[in-house]
Amino acid sequence: MISWKNLDQLSSYQELEKTAPVNLKEVMSGESGAARVKACVVPMEEGLSYNYAAKAVDDTIVDQLQKLADEAQLVDKYEALYNGEMINTGEKRLVLHQLTRGQLGKDVVVDGVNKRSFYVEQQNRIAEFADKVHQGQIVPEDGKKFTTVVQIGIGGSDLGPRAMYIALRNWAIRSNSLLMEAKFISNVDPDDAAAVLESTDLAHALFILVSKSGTTLETLTNETFVKNALTKAGLNPAKHMIACTSEASPLAHNEGYLAAFYMDNYIGGRYSSTSVVGGAVLSLAFGPAVFAQFLEGAAAEDRRAAEKDIRRNPEMLDALIGVYERNVLGYESTAVLPYSQALSRFPAHLQQLDMESNGKSVNRFGEPVNYPTGPVIFGEPGTNGQHSFYQLLHQGKNIIPLQFVGFKNSQLGVDDTIQGSTSQQKLCANVAAQIVAFACGKDDEDPNKRFDGGRPSSIITGEDVNPRSLGALLSHFENKVMFQGFAWNLNSFDQEGVQLGKVLAKRVLAHDTEGALTEYSRLLNI
Amino acid sequence: MISWKNLDQLSSYQELEKTAPVNLKEVMSGESGAARVKACVVPMEEGLSYNYAAKAVDDTIVDQLQKLADEAQLVDKYEALYNGEMINTGEKRLVLHQLTRGQLGKDVVVDGVNKRSFYVEQQNRIAEFADKVHQGQIVPEDGKKFTTVVQIGIGGSDLGPRAMYIALRNWAIRSNSLLMEAKFISNVDPDDAAAVLESTDLAHALFILVSKSGTTLETLTNETFVKNALTKAGLNPAKHMIACTSEASPLAHNEGYLAAFYMDNYIGGRYSSTSVVGGAVLSLAFGPAVFAQFLEGAAAEDRRAAEKDIRRNPEMLDALIGVYERNVLGYESTAVLPYSQALSRFPAHLQQLDMESNGKSVNRFGEPVNYPTGPVIFGEPGTNGQHSFYQLLHQGKNIIPLQFVGFKNSQLGVDDTIQGSTSQQKLCANVAAQIVAFACGKDDEDPNKRFDGGRPSSIITGEDVNPRSLGALLSHFENKVMFQGFAWNLNSFDQEGVQLGKVLAKRVLAHDTEGALTEYSRLLNI
Repeated sequence: MISWKNLDQLSSYQELEKTAPVNLKEVMSGESGAARVKACVVPMEEGLSYNYAAKAVDDTIVDQLQKLADEAQLVDKYEALYNGEMINTGEKRLVLHQLTRGQLGKDVVVDGVNKRSFYVEQQNRIAEFADKVHQGQIVPEDGKKFTTVVQIGIGGSDLGPRAMYIALRNWAIRSNSLLMEAKFISNVDPDDAAAVLESTDLAHALFILVSKSGTTLETLTNETFVKNALTKAGLNPAKHMIACTSEASPLAHNEGYLAAFYMDNYIGGRYSSTSVVGGAVLSLAFGPAVFAQFLEGAAAEDRRAAEKDIRRNPEMLDALIGVYERNVLGYESTAVLPYSQALSRFPAHLQQLDMESNGKSVNRFGEPVNYPTGPVIFGEPGTNGQHSFYQLLHQGKNIIPLQFVGFKNSQLGVDDTIQGSTSQQKLCANVAAQIVAFACGKDDEDPNKRFDGGRPSSIITGEDVNPRSLGALLSHFENKVMFQGFAWNLNSFDQEGVQLGKVLAKRVLAHDTEGALTEYSRLLNI
Repeated sequence: MISWKNLDQLSSYQELEKTAPVNLKEVMSGESGAARVKACVVPMEEGLSYNYAAKAVDDTIVDQLQKLADEAQLVDKYEALYNGEMINTGEKRLVLHQLTRGQLGKDVVVDGVNKRSFYVEQQNRIAEFADKVHQGQIVPEDGKKFTTVVQIGIGGSDLGPRAMYIALRNWAIRSNSLLMEAKFISNVDPDDAAAVLESTDLAHALFILVSKSGTTLETLTNETFVKNALTKAGLNPAKHMIACTSEASPLAHNEGYLAAFYMDNYIGGRYSSTSVVGGAVLSLAFGPAVFAQFLEGAAAEDRRAAEKDIRRNPEMLDALIGVYERNVLGYESTAVLPYSQALSRFPAHLQQLDMESNGKSVNRFGEPVNYPTGPVIFGEPGTNGQHSFYQLLHQGKNIIPLQFVGFKNSQLGVDDTIQGSTSQQKLCANVAAQIVAFACGKDDEDPNKRFDGGRPSSIITGEDVNPRSLGALLSHFENKVMFQGFAWNLNSFDQEGVQLGKVLAKRVLAHDTEGALTEYSRLLNI
């Protein structure tokens, strides 16, 4: 029997609050530090592993986190989720994104539809469609091949798929899998769409309209924008556009599209990279086999997240260390720092994933909670960040926990030995150095050059960014956020906080305003 | 006589702490809100204005901030800075970036060199060089024109110039000023350089190597990487490369470059967009006249920042409201949210500018301070952010002050009326709606749909993003950060916090490690 309790009602949490803190600087110095790096490691799938040596935890605290995981029934809740219980209490919906790739647990049947079969069917339809495009069986007006795919979507229909495309593009070049270039239009700012269209060969471009409801204002606006441009270029929009949407949407079964691929209300936007939302653009860009590998990586890590031993479940451990840092140690932000140019937009995706899921103040029953919930998430790839905001991370007044990601090998494999080391070695040397610098600090007679240390970080390491490891990495963070939401007793799967702005924007456009809203509208000349 | 005191030693600050807070929700509702939007506005240059109606301040608090500005001698300190006093106490350097564009104040002569003349001379040399490139007088081996300029730099040599280039690219397309495409290589990750080179016509590419010291490891590594690629392509690197550096650097007066343009130690990297660091790439991309307009916009706003009346000095007001929020109200982060795709990388630049300048824990004398200093800065362009992390901004447990930027007009001017409004109108409607939603909130029977409001924001509005308004906007934030640094009694112009990581990375590459550093090196296969 699952019991949904607030974090501060759990006796294991109350004990955790009383547990002696760890002096990170001390334990990470000397041989103790070396021993920690070897010991504090949790294997992940696809060659990844999670190392938490530089987190301010010890065996006692991890034991306490295990008790918290058990008392909060985190794995039971995860099982309930993927077995089809109604976890999204606000919108009264199931949460089934794991089913799009993992086929974990039981069959979930809703209104007579086996959801497992439904998602697989959509993947197969996309694969078939993409193959036909690649083989020149589905072609634009001039009978030549489509060369570019342009995704039109915003939020979860943009950030995840875009981050995944960028992450795999160089890998695909090296493995001869870059079948089509992909581009993205998201912002309602007309300069976004106009600039993408200006640099695109419209006659050979295939557009993917992505909106679950089929009513997202930005996306529909950009669709019309694109259709007008196609028409002006003498092209037939219906020959250049497919839709990813729900079957109940106006975009479904619509002759305005070459094809439509379906998700449903049980796939949240920010969890939709492994659904048709990511599936269409990634299968068209890289081929269906690559997308299938990406799903397999995610599925494997999903299975690992079902492990009850926190020392063998990197998602749950990462999640609860984060809860400890947020609630007991009082840290407000977390920086995500991938030492990989391929992951340059991964932090922007995690920013949505995490902040939209757990940036809440009421629990799943709508009752206010009295403790901090989701942190601010930000980040840029290293080493770039080192030359930017790391100053504050090292010497600022507040401690910001850090989440590093690093890989042994580059994607393109093009590298030179300069001053005795390759660029990839320099990159890796920098992330190793940063972890130790943050944890151990350095004393100095000049206080301006003093580093207090004691700044916690973890690192996920791997061989390289490829479809499988990327899938596992994505699953890691999705499941981490899910476990944190469970621990905070939140509904991580709705986003009511985005509604008010939408309502007010419509009123501005209808000139149905008063007070400050009227004046701001004047100020912006609307 | 200037006196440098810690914030908490100022009697005006102690009074500010005792001043009654403002109920933002209350004052922004109804007619009071409308009146505030009209009243709380400070004109800026180049058609911009700063509106702080939705900040939790009233006349009493602004009066108190004026007293703080006076007691902390903020404008006197600014005058001392641009008149050449040694403001960068840590590195014992002058701080002269305003001289690169503003020619404010007195002549500053160092070691017999008039710095004003020196910076102007470098600008003129760049203009002459760029004109020759554009006119085909300086050409690559095949005698054809250079078509692409590629900046190699990291941190301040990358983020600012890149953000400015992206900001003006569409404007340049519309005004027929896009003379060369610009690209950027920053990360030491070999996949960054390799991907840029893969998509660049090397035979017609001009590379700009940017490093003040001429010793930045990432940049020198990428330079060699690029030179190797040029050599492999049968090209002579010396015919394809210019340098932006200091005269003391090994890159100066070096036959390996077509030309070298100079800055000096008085221009900090994150303040270097208006020096040769931004000047070379922007003059080559858009022409020297466009770069000159950008400087004029910055210069005009610099002059405005010298105004002692805080209600007429938007930089100082913005800065001190930020100090009030950080130190009295206790807010830890600030989100920068430009409703303009052109400013998509502006938040990343501000992240460096702000966090590297004021992410410090000791004052300018090296003594620890007992109050919060620089906040975490993050942001993405609206409306994209709305579909991402705004959930937390609206309903999260912590209040995050917001800095909006919005423009009446798009850059390309390509727009369609869809559902009764243009995309640009929708964009503007959204930012207006968000400000009111954050400030006023909305009650609801369902606590999950309740918005508490009281979340403060300001907005800078303007006509459009063009070289002049962009210059003014850049100056606004540079001067805001400077004033905050003065208020916190920090040295905002050094960055000792980035040194330790560099030292440790070198030790890793030299295999001169012990303890945890050795183990992390093994983990990453270095």
